[in-house]
Amino acid sequence: MSTASERVRPVVGTMIGDPAGIGPEVAVRALAGGEVHNEGIPVLVGSAAAVERALDFTGTKARLRVMGKFEKPSDDPTIIDIIDTGALPVGVLPLGEDTEAAGHATAQWLDELDALARDGAFAATIMGPISTGSLKLAGKLDKVISPTPGESYLVLLSGALRVAHLTDHMSLRQVIDIISSDLVAMAIAQLHEAMQSWGIARPRIAVAGLNPHAMGDEDRLAIAPGVEAARARGIDVEGPIAPDSVFRHCIEGRYDMVLAMFHDQGHIAVKTWGFSGNSVIIMGPPYLHMSVAHGTAYDIVGTGKADAAMMLSAMRTCGRLASGRGFEQA
Amino acid sequence: MSTASERVRPVVGTMIGDPAGIGPEVAVRALAGGEVHNEGIPVLVGSAAAVERALDFTGTKARLRVMGKFEKPSDDPTIIDIIDTGALPVGVLPLGEDTEAAGHATAQWLDELDALARDGAFAATIMGPISTGSLKLAGKLDKVISPTPGESYLVLLSGALRVAHLTDHMSLRQVIDIISSDLVAMAIAQLHEAMQSWGIARPRIAVAGLNPHAMGDEDRLAIAPGVEAARARGIDVEGPIAPDSVFRHCIEGRYDMVLAMFHDQGHIAVKTWGFSGNSVIIMGPPYLHMSVAHGTAYDIVGTGKADAAMMLSAMRTCGRLASGRGFEQA
Repeated sequence: MSTASERVRPVVGTMIGDPAGIGPEVAVRALAGGEVHNEGIPVLVGSAAAVERALDFTGTKARLRVMGKFEKPSDDPTIIDIIDTGALPVGVLPLGEDTEAAGHATAQWLDELDALARDGAFAATIMGPISTGSLKLAGKLDKVISPTPGESYLVLLSGALRVAHLTDHMSLRQVIDIISSDLVAMAIAQLHEAMQSWGIARPRIAVAGLNPHAMGDEDRLAIAPGVEAARARGIDVEGPIAPDSVFRHCIEGRYDMVLAMFHDQGHIAVKTWGFSGNSVIIMGPPYLHMSVAHGTAYDIVGTGKADAAMMLSAMRTCGRLASGRGFEQA
Repeated sequence: MSTASERVRPVVGTMIGDPAGIGPEVAVRALAGGEVHNEGIPVLVGSAAAVERALDFTGTKARLRVMGKFEKPSDDPTIIDIIDTGALPVGVLPLGEDTEAAGHATAQWLDELDALARDGAFAATIMGPISTGSLKLAGKLDKVISPTPGESYLVLLSGALRVAHLTDHMSLRQVIDIISSDLVAMAIAQLHEAMQSWGIARPRIAVAGLNPHAMGDEDRLAIAPGVEAARARGIDVEGPIAPDSVFRHCIEGRYDMVLAMFHDQGHIAVKTWGFSGNSVIIMGPPYLHMSVAHGTAYDIVGTGKADAAMMLSAMRTCGRLASGRGFEQA
């Protein structure tokens, strides 16, 4: 295996999340070990003051390098690079509560993250744990990507269990009404293309059925023809597979990714399996965009209890995938 | 803890399943260790010739005591008591394939099992792995209880994860259409009463929602009022709870049982968690009726490879619950 310095490592931009939550803490903790630098070159986006405070909370030793705009990163594990454009007014540093100021700031940081990725400064991005409460107060909830069938998909990574969701926050009745062979075929094609760009030469995709044993009208009339259309394009995809078996098959290594039909189908599998270090990909933007599977955890902010495992996993995975090195073997 | 002989142990009748499948093998293997006798007094129902053959296949040492009708069981771990009324004609001993004769025999054994339980000879019963193929050939598929909302429920036991299903083999669209507060309240009451009879003084029940985060029309209009009605009757029940969290809560010991709204909600949780030794309760008959979570496994029948863990778990659990000693601590 080549060393980190010999490989092309992508610049990964991480937005620290709501400054009142555990985002800054888990970001500095994840960076502290130096492991992240093996997979990519990290740059934070957010409030330098919040990150400074997080270094205190967590007892993390690192030097902060504050930039007003993107500059060549230090690429030094003892230095934390952060872009702080002053979105959070000086002296405003909420802790453990939603504020309009934090909502405005996180909205601006999300815009900056997106712009730097579209400009090519960031090869990939991570959204730290934001607060929908703060964003609502600022009237900026629309800045958070809401997965939309046919456009964007939530992908949960949980060790060998990887699940993309055809639909997200949608009632089951709506899911049944909108499922179509086109939507299914489109999602399969997007997943296939994305995984190839992440370095999986021939991704193996499994599609979950909708009904028990995948033996219902929608399985036969919408999902099966969608899978067939994708197979006709040369994609290695199987389905519809009985929803109660397909996730275990993925855990056992038979597939690289499962396409679930709805939010809880995939979320029940991932959360019940109970693997730690889960991370999230939000497919849709023209670059790799990840997130963490936890929230702001206001109840433990500042106590030093926040677990950085998910942020560490997101930072490492983001670097691997953005440079086409595929999923880590679970 | 008292010894087995000091406690009242219930007589548990186990139908061997299809004689062509692994049912006879896993039954004799499960009985061989003597563990089953700690929890109950086992009696088999089925073909003595098939069980004799299974003793050979598995190299199990035990003496077979063949009865033409129910008699006082031996209650001796070195003796296997079996009731064989001659339903499978002498000389007919299929192996690894569906036959009409096996279908007729298993149908008759199911009737005998039910009759002996209703007469009080058996305190509880277990159905070994039957073949729906054989039963179809015999036109006797109706002998197998098909869970029906409001009447009978499939309950999966998987260590600390225990899940009852409001609906079974029903399309998701039908599930959404039939969910009502009455059905939910009725199922909660039946579960509560059953668990009390199994020795859980104050069962803690969790009800899964239907939609993401349990925030949909059916969650608000059908499930929530059903839960409220049950609470008003003094039952310790919570819900609707986000479907992607409730199963993990149960695993962590917060509840004794989850009521899932549909087949895959519960089955995804149980199968993805991947605990071994799962067993099944079919609630509906006026006595405890269990089954195993595997099929006839024709491909390995006679090879000695069949794993008896699920049958052992069913036999032990059946004895415990029928004598009111509650679930085994996982």
